[in-house]
Amino acid sequence: MPALNEIAALRSETPGCAHHIHLNNAGASLVPRPVLEAMQNYLTEESLHGGYETFAAHAGAIAGFYDAMAKLLHTNPRNIAFAGSATDAYARALSAIPFEAGDVLLTTDDDYVSNQIAFLSLQNKLKIRVLRAAKLPEGGVDPQSVKELMEKHRPKLVAVTHVPTNSGLVQDVEAVGRLCREREVWYLVDACQSAGQMPLDMAEIGCDFLSGTMRKWLRGPRGAGFLFVSDRVLEAGLEPLLPDMAGAVWVENDRYLPMDDARRFEFWEKPFALLVGSGAAVKYALDLGLGGIERQVTALAEHTRQQLSALAGVLVLDRGSRRCGIVTAFFEGKKPADLKKALDGAGINTGFGATVNALIDFKEKGVDWALRLSPHYYNTHAEIDRAVEVLAKVS
Amino acid sequence: MPALNEIAALRSETPGCAHHIHLNNAGASLVPRPVLEAMQNYLTEESLHGGYETFAAHAGAIAGFYDAMAKLLHTNPRNIAFAGSATDAYARALSAIPFEAGDVLLTTDDDYVSNQIAFLSLQNKLKIRVLRAAKLPEGGVDPQSVKELMEKHRPKLVAVTHVPTNSGLVQDVEAVGRLCREREVWYLVDACQSAGQMPLDMAEIGCDFLSGTMRKWLRGPRGAGFLFVSDRVLEAGLEPLLPDMAGAVWVENDRYLPMDDARRFEFWEKPFALLVGSGAAVKYALDLGLGGIERQVTALAEHTRQQLSALAGVLVLDRGSRRCGIVTAFFEGKKPADLKKALDGAGINTGFGATVNALIDFKEKGVDWALRLSPHYYNTHAEIDRAVEVLAKVS
Repeated sequence: MPALNEIAALRSETPGCAHHIHLNNAGASLVPRPVLEAMQNYLTEESLHGGYETFAAHAGAIAGFYDAMAKLLHTNPRNIAFAGSATDAYARALSAIPFEAGDVLLTTDDDYVSNQIAFLSLQNKLKIRVLRAAKLPEGGVDPQSVKELMEKHRPKLVAVTHVPTNSGLVQDVEAVGRLCREREVWYLVDACQSAGQMPLDMAEIGCDFLSGTMRKWLRGPRGAGFLFVSDRVLEAGLEPLLPDMAGAVWVENDRYLPMDDARRFEFWEKPFALLVGSGAAVKYALDLGLGGIERQVTALAEHTRQQLSALAGVLVLDRGSRRCGIVTAFFEGKKPADLKKALDGAGINTGFGATVNALIDFKEKGVDWALRLSPHYYNTHAEIDRAVEVLAKVS
Repeated sequence: MPALNEIAALRSETPGCAHHIHLNNAGASLVPRPVLEAMQNYLTEESLHGGYETFAAHAGAIAGFYDAMAKLLHTNPRNIAFAGSATDAYARALSAIPFEAGDVLLTTDDDYVSNQIAFLSLQNKLKIRVLRAAKLPEGGVDPQSVKELMEKHRPKLVAVTHVPTNSGLVQDVEAVGRLCREREVWYLVDACQSAGQMPLDMAEIGCDFLSGTMRKWLRGPRGAGFLFVSDRVLEAGLEPLLPDMAGAVWVENDRYLPMDDARRFEFWEKPFALLVGSGAAVKYALDLGLGGIERQVTALAEHTRQQLSALAGVLVLDRGSRRCGIVTAFFEGKKPADLKKALDGAGINTGFGATVNALIDFKEKGVDWALRLSPHYYNTHAEIDRAVEVLAKVS
C-alpha cells in the first residue's frame, strides 16, 4: 500500500477524489477502496450463504476488527466493544455509571452536543448535578479548574470530549486523566473527532471509557463505532443498564452472569459487513501510522487557517494551544446558504455548524454559524487553495 | 416482481437459493437481489460523493424506509424509529419507562432471553419486581393470568414477545393488548420473530412500543431494526434515558427540547446503506402481501412438523394454538454436532437452540437443545423433504 507521502497513489485508491474536493472529513471522510470492497464482498457473501453462516465462516476477519482497534488504542482486544456509532458507544458507557440522586457529573463547555443532552437527561431523571469546568485563556478545559471542582464536589464521573465537533481545539485529556487516576474517579472520553487523526494511548489518557466513530478520520463506514472499556471497569463489575445475551448469560430464571470482557457492552446483533469494513479501515490507518497522519493533517489545517485569515471579513474561530484537522470560520456579512451553494457548485464538500451544535462555544465566540473545513491526509494544498478561491468570490 | 406463488421466479431473485437449502430464516434469511443492490449501490455512492453528501441526495429513499415500515405496521411514519437491531430498539423503549423502586414489570415465560436479562438487570439496579404470567395448557401466555396479575400488582409495564426465538408458538399479543388499554398500562411487544412472516396491526395489538429486526423474516440486512412508538408515548413525553441530537434540540445551557415524533428514540448517526436496504426489504414484503406470506410460511412449517414427527425418536417441541414458521425438534439419543455436520455437508442451513437461549421453556420441555428449521415462502416442499431425509440418516 502507498505511504503517507505518496499522495497521488493514496488518492487513486480513494474513488471519491476523482469527483470532489472533499474537505468534510470531520463529517464523514471518503473510504479507501479496500474498505468499500471489504463491505461489499461481505454483503455478497451473506446473500449467497446466509447471514449466520457467513459470520461463522469469517471469524478471522471479525476478530481482526478487535485486534486492529486494540493496536490503534494501545490496549488489548478484550477491552474493545463494537458499537453502532460513537454516540451509541457513549450511551452504553454512561448507562453503566451507578449514579444516585445528588451525584455530580463534571464536564466541559466544549463537550459534544449529544453528550450535553444526555447529561441533562440524567440531571432531569436521576437528579444528578452537571457541572462544567472553566476554560484556559487560550481555550480548552483548564485542568486546574477540573482539579478544584473535583476536590470540592467529588464527582462520580468526569466526561471530556477530546476534540469538539465545531472547533479545531484539542482538549488536554491526559492532564484530566491524571487527576481522575489520582482520585479514582470514573473518566469517560469522547474521541469521536480524534480517533484516526492522531495517536491515542489508553494508558497515557488514563480513561475508563473512550468512545469513537468509524466514518470520520478513520475512513470507515457510517453506522459503526467503538468503545474502549478499561480493566478497572471490568473488574469493578460495571455493566450497561440493559445488557443482552452478548453481554451476559442467563443462568437461572432470576439470575444472569456478565461476560468477563468488553463484549459486556455489546449487543449480540451487529452489522457485520460494517464491522469487517471498520477493521479494514483501522488497519489502513495503522499501516500509514497515526503520528504521520497527525503531522500531515495538522499541516494542511494550518495552511487552511492561514489562507482563510488572509480573506477580508473572515474570522477563524479555532482556539486552544493544540489544534487539529478541523478548521472553523465565520464570514462577516455572508450567508451560509450562499457559501454552500458556491462550494457545492465547485464540487467542494464541506460542513456547517449552527448554535444548536455548540451552544456554549458559539455564544462565547459571538457567532451563530460557522463553516467547517476538515482536510485529511489525502487532501492537497491545491485543493485547499481552490476552496479558498471559491469562498473569496462569494458576495 | 414475481407473485407469491411464482416460486421459481422468487428463487431466481434470491442468489443464495442456488447455493443452499436455507432453512435458517429465523436466524437470518437470504436477501433478495433488490435489497443487496440497494445497499451496495448506496455504499458505492458514499465512496464516490461522501457520506453526508450521499445522505442529502437520497432523502427520498431514506424517507421510503419510514413510509414502508409504517404501511407494514398499519401506522404513520412519525411513529417509526430506525434502530441497530430489535434488541437495540427494545432497550431504547425499556429505558423510557419511568420505573421506580417497587414497580412491577409483568412478562411471560416465553419472552426472549435478551429481554429477560434486561428485566433482571433492572430488577437488580432499579429494584423493580419482575413477574411472569402463567401459561395456557396448550402453551403461550394465559390472558386470564395476565389480567389477575395486573389487578393484583398494577404493573408499570407489560412486556410480551410475540413469537419466541426457540419455538413455533405465536403468543396472543392482541388479548394482552386489550387488557393494557383498558387499564392504561404501558405495553411493549417484541416482534423480532413475527415481523415479516405475518400481518402486524398496531391498533389491533394495542401496544405502546413494538420492536423488530430486518434480518429475519423481512429479508433485510444484519444490524438493522425498528421501533414503533405510539402517539400515547409521544404525548406523555416519554423519551429514552439517553437521547441525542436526533432526539432533542439543545436550546439552553441546561435545557433541551425533545422531538415531537418517534425520531426521539433514534440516534443521529445511522448506517444509511442498511437503512435504505431495509426500506427495499419492507417494500418487497408489502408487494407480496403479509397475509399470503403467513399462509405460505405456515403451510411449509406444518409440512416440516409432519415430516419430522414421522421419524423415530424425534420430538417436535412447538406448542400453542397458533403456530408460525419456526419448527423446533429434539432428537433422542442424537448429538446436535452430528446433526449439524450432516446438514452442513448437504448444504442445508439451519439453527440450533440451547438452554441458555430459552431457559424456562427448555427446562419445562425437558430438553437441553433443539434443532430449529425455519422455512420462508421461497422454500419448497422438496427442500424440506431433503432436509428430513438427511436428518433421518444421522446415527
